Amino acid sequence: MRKYGVIGLGQVGATVAYTLVQQGIVDELVLIDKNEALAKAQKLDLDDASPRLSSTTKIILNDYDALADAEVLIVASGNIGAIDMNSSKGRFGEYDLNQAIVRDIAPKIVASGFKGILIDIMNPCDVMTDYLQRMTGFPRNRVFGTGTFLDTARMQKYVGQATGTNGKNVSGYVYGEHGNSQFVAWSTVSVNGQPIKKFPGLNLDQLEEDARQGAFAVMAGKHYTNFAIATCGVRLAEAVSADAQLACPVSAFDPQFGTYVGMPAVIGKNGIESLIQLELTADEQASLAASAKFIKSQVDVLPGAEVNA
Amino acid sequence: MRKYGVIGLGQVGATVAYTLVQQGIVDELVLIDKNEALAKAQKLDLDDASPRLSSTTKIILNDYDALADAEVLIVASGNIGAIDMNSSKGRFGEYDLNQAIVRDIAPKIVASGFKGILIDIMNPCDVMTDYLQRMTGFPRNRVFGTGTFLDTARMQKYVGQATGTNGKNVSGYVYGEHGNSQFVAWSTVSVNGQPIKKFPGLNLDQLEEDARQGAFAVMAGKHYTNFAIATCGVRLAEAVSADAQLACPVSAFDPQFGTYVGMPAVIGKNGIESLIQLELTADEQASLAASAKFIKSQVDVLPGAEVNA
Amino acid sequence: MRKYGVIGLGQVGATVAYTLVQQGIVDELVLIDKNEALAKAQKLDLDDASPRLSSTTKIILNDYDALADAEVLIVASGNIGAIDMNSSKGRFGEYDLNQAIVRDIAPKIVASGFKGILIDIMNPCDVMTDYLQRMTGFPRNRVFGTGTFLDTARMQKYVGQATGTNGKNVSGYVYGEHGNSQFVAWSTVSVNGQPIKKFPGLNLDQLEEDARQGAFAVMAGKHYTNFAIATCGVRLAEAVSADAQLACPVSAFDPQFGTYVGMPAVIGKNGIESLIQLELTADEQASLAASAKFIKSQVDVLPGAEVNA
Amino acid sequence: MRKYGVIGLGQVGATVAYTLVQQGIVDELVLIDKNEALAKAQKLDLDDASPRLSSTTKIILNDYDALADAEVLIVASGNIGAIDMNSSKGRFGEYDLNQAIVRDIAPKIVASGFKGILIDIMNPCDVMTDYLQRMTGFPRNRVFGTGTFLDTARMQKYVGQATGTNGKNVSGYVYGEHGNSQFVAWSTVSVNGQPIKKFPGLNLDQLEEDARQGAFAVMAGKHYTNFAIATCGVRLAEAVSADAQLACPVSAFDPQFGTYVGMPAVIGKNGIESLIQLELTADEQASLAASAKFIKSQVDVLPGAEVNA
Repeated sequence: MRKYGVIGLGQVGATVAYTLVQQGIVDELVLIDKNEALAKAQKLDLDDASPRLSSTTKIILNDYDALADAEVLIVASGNIGAIDMNSSKGRFGEYDLNQAIVRDIAPKIVASGFKGILIDIMNPCDVMTDYLQRMTGFPRNRVFGTGTFLDTARMQKYVGQATGTNGKNVSGYVYGEHGNSQFVAWSTVSVNGQPIKKFPGLNLDQLEEDARQGAFAVMAGKHYTNFAIATCGVRLAEAVSADAQLACPVSAFDPQFGTYVGMPAVIGKNGIESLIQLELTADEQASLAASAKFIKSQVDVLPGAEVNA
Repeated sequence: MRKYGVIGLGQVGATVAYTLVQQGIVDELVLIDKNEALAKAQKLDLDDASPRLSSTTKIILNDYDALADAEVLIVASGNIGAIDMNSSKGRFGEYDLNQAIVRDIAPKIVASGFKGILIDIMNPCDVMTDYLQRMTGFPRNRVFGTGTFLDTARMQKYVGQATGTNGKNVSGYVYGEHGNSQFVAWSTVSVNGQPIKKFPGLNLDQLEEDARQGAFAVMAGKHYTNFAIATCGVRLAEAVSADAQLACPVSAFDPQFGTYVGMPAVIGKNGIESLIQLELTADEQASLAASAKFIKSQVDVLPGAEVNA
Repeated sequence: MRKYGVIGLGQVGATVAYTLVQQGIVDELVLIDKNEALAKAQKLDLDDASPRLSSTTKIILNDYDALADAEVLIVASGNIGAIDMNSSKGRFGEYDLNQAIVRDIAPKIVASGFKGILIDIMNPCDVMTDYLQRMTGFPRNRVFGTGTFLDTARMQKYVGQATGTNGKNVSGYVYGEHGNSQFVAWSTVSVNGQPIKKFPGLNLDQLEEDARQGAFAVMAGKHYTNFAIATCGVRLAEAVSADAQLACPVSAFDPQFGTYVGMPAVIGKNGIESLIQLELTADEQASLAASAKFIKSQVDVLPGAEVNA
Repeated sequence: MRKYGVIGLGQVGATVAYTLVQQGIVDELVLIDKNEALAKAQKLDLDDASPRLSSTTKIILNDYDALADAEVLIVASGNIGAIDMNSSKGRFGEYDLNQAIVRDIAPKIVASGFKGILIDIMNPCDVMTDYLQRMTGFPRNRVFGTGTFLDTARMQKYVGQATGTNGKNVSGYVYGEHGNSQFVAWSTVSVNGQPIKKFPGLNLDQLEEDARQGAFAVMAGKHYTNFAIATCGVRLAEAVSADAQLACPVSAFDPQFGTYVGMPAVIGKNGIESLIQLELTADEQASLAASAKFIKSQVDVLPGAEVNA
């Protein structure tokens, strides 16, 4: 039996839940939100769909205890309205709100006896993932964030468009913060098996900026993003359930930097099975270190963050 | 190649699009919304998900001409905010807005050369489906509405809960308006193959009311509904593509009443392949006639509605 | 994590495995066959497909111990070549072979510590399901057979064809033995919500015979059947995993007859959650009793069958 | 509406059909086999599954005319029994048989008015793909073979096992003949984004041989292969329907060699959209040229092969 939990049932968490239910990916799904009316509404809407689906998913509402035997817990809390896409704060608009949420939910998650893998989508993602790990005290491999998994998808899309191919044919990674200090490690990027440098005339700076600003491009029209990020969260959860040992760019704890930061890692039943250390250029290494340093600086100052640092 | 269109990219239309893309149901998807920023944002969000999906869907934006060779067009326009769930108007809160939308989009759909099946989700569903048929002049079988397909799912859910079984084991239909005058035709309802009357102690009036109020129960917490209604729309579209000849309760044109109203019909490549005439009780027949009469009265007064009546 | 086992990797068991792997339904799959070369070949073929699938399934070979934490175990042993479709023995051509298989595998299943639900596909299905239950000593609800789940699908197909609609629109059940003494309980059959008696001019005897002979029609051309029976097995297993409480005609133990026989039952995490007792006609009741009596007579004489009778 | 055809309903073609039907990938499926009893049996078995599937697929039997509006035609003819895995002939055991099949079916395909993409699975794959193109006279982009798509999957699997990761994390290609002269272009192979040369201690020769012998390893136990090759065929067909522009190693016509040979190409609605020319090493180039030369030599001598050469 596959059993997941989702905390935070705004657009992202609800879309995660819908994806899981629509495709029969899980047998039981624990949905948690402080807004009880919202949580109830999401369950009702999902249950209403059930007679039109070939699969059946049992939805359990607002019961932390039910997380005890869940394999995966996806945290999608936050208030997208707090993100000011016109300010340099970007995803840090949710910093104050979400750190408080972490302090609220972390002990509840621990108390539930949850023994699975915690996947964080909350923003700023790397900071909150790190904070969640510290406040739960869970082993670092058991906590990771969606990080640059989506940014990398956006990079793949934009590079695919620029080279006239499907983004699925683009390999390589966006590293660093799921935020302004992220960067495309172009040394890792290939298109149809050929290094990106073989494709003349590409404006790599623009492509990198397109990936970085991808969320804001979506928010400019719909005020939030949900489809792609939910898809990313679900794919990672499936990789955990299947112990798939998939190579994915996520927000993982890197002991070299003492914090979580976006980089390729292997995902399996233990969460982060290992980090993938590619030979980055010196510039890329420096960008990664700088991004990680920034993330760490934002975590270290949070209340209680020193305990499990 | 499967090609669908969706007009109206609010929560419902966008969730329809996401469901189609997430599961690779269509190869091409035409997305149309007057709010160009919104339409662009939905496309960006869906395209961002593509590198994380095994399937690929080409999304075409705001191009009516692209509907010329689409098999199915789902209309999900409207402004859910106009529905006042605390007033007796219910879904008629969108009546003024959506009739104007019909007059706007119908000639554009006709001009596109669209030759497929039009599935309406707009509210008030039966009225707007009828109006869409009249204003497009399309054959009546080629236009139908989701009608009571969702209300029937809700009835199945609530009856399933009351009898301790899966709603999928409940057969039977909600007839009439996708709105206040709908009713459960209890004479058609069975649970695990046994007529509902074999289950003593059920409060059928309450179960009927639960189904009727299902949308409002969801809206009370999330201010709109999307997951179940999008699922219903997608299932009907799939039945058209596959020429599945599936028996489903939808809003279909019944010549007996001269309007669209919720009843079981057979769905295939021609849209409504036939109506299913069950032996209703006299009371049920009267309720259906009354509901249809109400729907017709609301369509007949609309500008231009007399032309193709 | 979803984990199933399959014993017997001929055409049916292998197709069950392929369906589970192709659709990512399980995370771990234990495959067992005495023919080690065959088992290894099936695993190799499935593993070769893995890089072309979005999901990942871990396949464990010929390890009974690995069944300890499996949710579902599907038994698909046998030798289809032993079925003589031109003799009145029909599926009893495998009777001698498969009773020996039951005596071989039952203690191994018990010794594995398997605590899940055992779904039998072996023929003659009802007899071997009963024998498997007796020889494992598992609670009767935890063992059931595919029974008439497939025969009912065939009846739905043929009735759908005869009435010009999709077999999915046909409800009702084939009862009794998955074999010659089965029968369509016409009193339970409806098409598009209307009792079968409303459809004049149908040759019900012929339709019943078509369903009964469905397997042999397939075998006449391919010498075995696999696609439909594997699909049936997978659907039942999914219903167990999801605790779906689905109403399905299966081979379930009916205390009234003291044996397993095909009838509608509710399938959930406990296997057979309950039997569904429909009001059959006197003739149907008699046919069911006769069919069950025949099944029981074939089980009772098997070595060791008296122990847990 | 998605419509495919399959010619040849042995284990491979039937498994292709089952995969398409089981997952609702197509709305119509034309099944063709000279063995009419076999063809009928496959249709019966698939139709029997339909009431247990959420999707519906219409199956058309042995009607070449029905291919006129099919998007994709998969040719899976042959007689696996003719492959002698213990002889150096390998897949050429089917050479005599399948060249005759090509001469039989090619004019029928042409006469049908088929305008879609022809995907060949018949062995020896590259030779028969080339011959099919020549005998149909279809544009070379509209005909391609599964070629080394499966061999590459096997290489990914074996390299993944050797490096302790999922084969999905392995990129790179097997080039050349789907047969003995194939080779792994190690210069193209990466694991988790790192070139294979970074992984010390691997026996690349053995890994290459494992991939090359993969089919025979399966055949040693089950006397044919079907699951992985069917999966490959379906994935390629989906890429055509979706115009996915996916980079896949297939048997494509390379003007440099004047024949079909396994190499990466981009697959879309036009079949082969373009060849992907990677910078192979001199040795790899030589191996590819030799493999292509061998293939061409086997095609050129076939009756009528000179016409469209």
